[in-house]
Amino acid sequence: MPAPIDFYFDFSSPYGYLASEQIDALAAKHGRTVAWRPILLGVVFQQTGGQPLLNIPLKGGYARHDLARSARLLGLPFQLPAGFPFMSVAACRAFYWLDDEDPAAAVTLARALYREAFGRGGEIDSGEAVLRVAEEAGIGRGDEMAAALNDPGVKQRLRDEVSRAISKGVFGSPLFVVDGEPFWGHDRLDQVDLWLQRGGW
Amino acid sequence: MPAPIDFYFDFSSPYGYLASEQIDALAAKHGRTVAWRPILLGVVFQQTGGQPLLNIPLKGGYARHDLARSARLLGLPFQLPAGFPFMSVAACRAFYWLDDEDPAAAVTLARALYREAFGRGGEIDSGEAVLRVAEEAGIGRGDEMAAALNDPGVKQRLRDEVSRAISKGVFGSPLFVVDGEPFWGHDRLDQVDLWLQRGGW
Repeated sequence: MPAPIDFYFDFSSPYGYLASEQIDALAAKHGRTVAWRPILLGVVFQQTGGQPLLNIPLKGGYARHDLARSARLLGLPFQLPAGFPFMSVAACRAFYWLDDEDPAAAVTLARALYREAFGRGGEIDSGEAVLRVAEEAGIGRGDEMAAALNDPGVKQRLRDEVSRAISKGVFGSPLFVVDGEPFWGHDRLDQVDLWLQRGGW
Repeated sequence: MPAPIDFYFDFSSPYGYLASEQIDALAAKHGRTVAWRPILLGVVFQQTGGQPLLNIPLKGGYARHDLARSARLLGLPFQLPAGFPFMSVAACRAFYWLDDEDPAAAVTLARALYREAFGRGGEIDSGEAVLRVAEEAGIGRGDEMAAALNDPGVKQRLRDEVSRAISKGVFGSPLFVVDGEPFWGHDRLDQVDLWLQRGGW
């Protein structure tokens, strides 16, 4: 059984949203699965000196245009939430808590959160919002999930995941690792596809 | 006659080199020509707060890997010059001086400079180097070109071109403008191709 494709992303990353709508089908085409790995880009940027793309002069304006255009090309709804970039700590904690017992449910939640944030421009930055999205996606766990968002073990799990990602060289979102080979950016999915097809070049 | 595709690039931009080897053929496929427009990204970055990609922690290391991998995929030789990033003022001045009387020769020079810098890892940052590359490319103009590199009119022409590019929103390299639509990055050539084919989407 070949290794899964690692898919690193921040819930606040609009290009991550675009990738989230394509990566599973792309992997399946090559008989692969995907390990979804949400991270906190803010923590990464503290170490790399990076900054949110859309805050950069000129580049930010272009990125908004490019995102809308790329979404149209893919036939995906796209809208930036009013609060952007936003905190995705609650979303990440809910993901990893679910991931421990039911990875498929965690991916369902991740996809629902991304669609809420960038498909409809909704807010997903609070624990309440994450619980509501989970409920609407049919994977609500009510009080149990609410408690998990403040559980010290879950908090530590997220810190460990982010540290591990940084130690593996993850510096942006989305970032894919295919058999040890890193590909950064939604616009590198073409190369991910080719790499899987040819086994490298 | 449809408008040419504007191709903005910095001679010190390795992704610009990759694009320079593809853009003319891509345009020709759609019955278009290309207006090559070298700029000075350092001047742009003074206004946008950007910094050279390969100097950014983590991202820089990835970019070196990505560049070599992308060049291999395209079957292009690739080597970073020892001095990098480098000053491309002389290269730009030689280009615009030639461009006034013989645009085709200017493009020949640009391509030769890019191949020297990133195909062979050579230095193109000095006036001497630019004259030598021009000579080897069969478009040498000796003393006349040497004088042009210090001509106040040529210097002003370059300043004007860079200012005009910034005023049009150019913030990176390579950046293409197709019928008013901007596309940034070598990895957006796919969308440039589709845009030309469909006339937008």
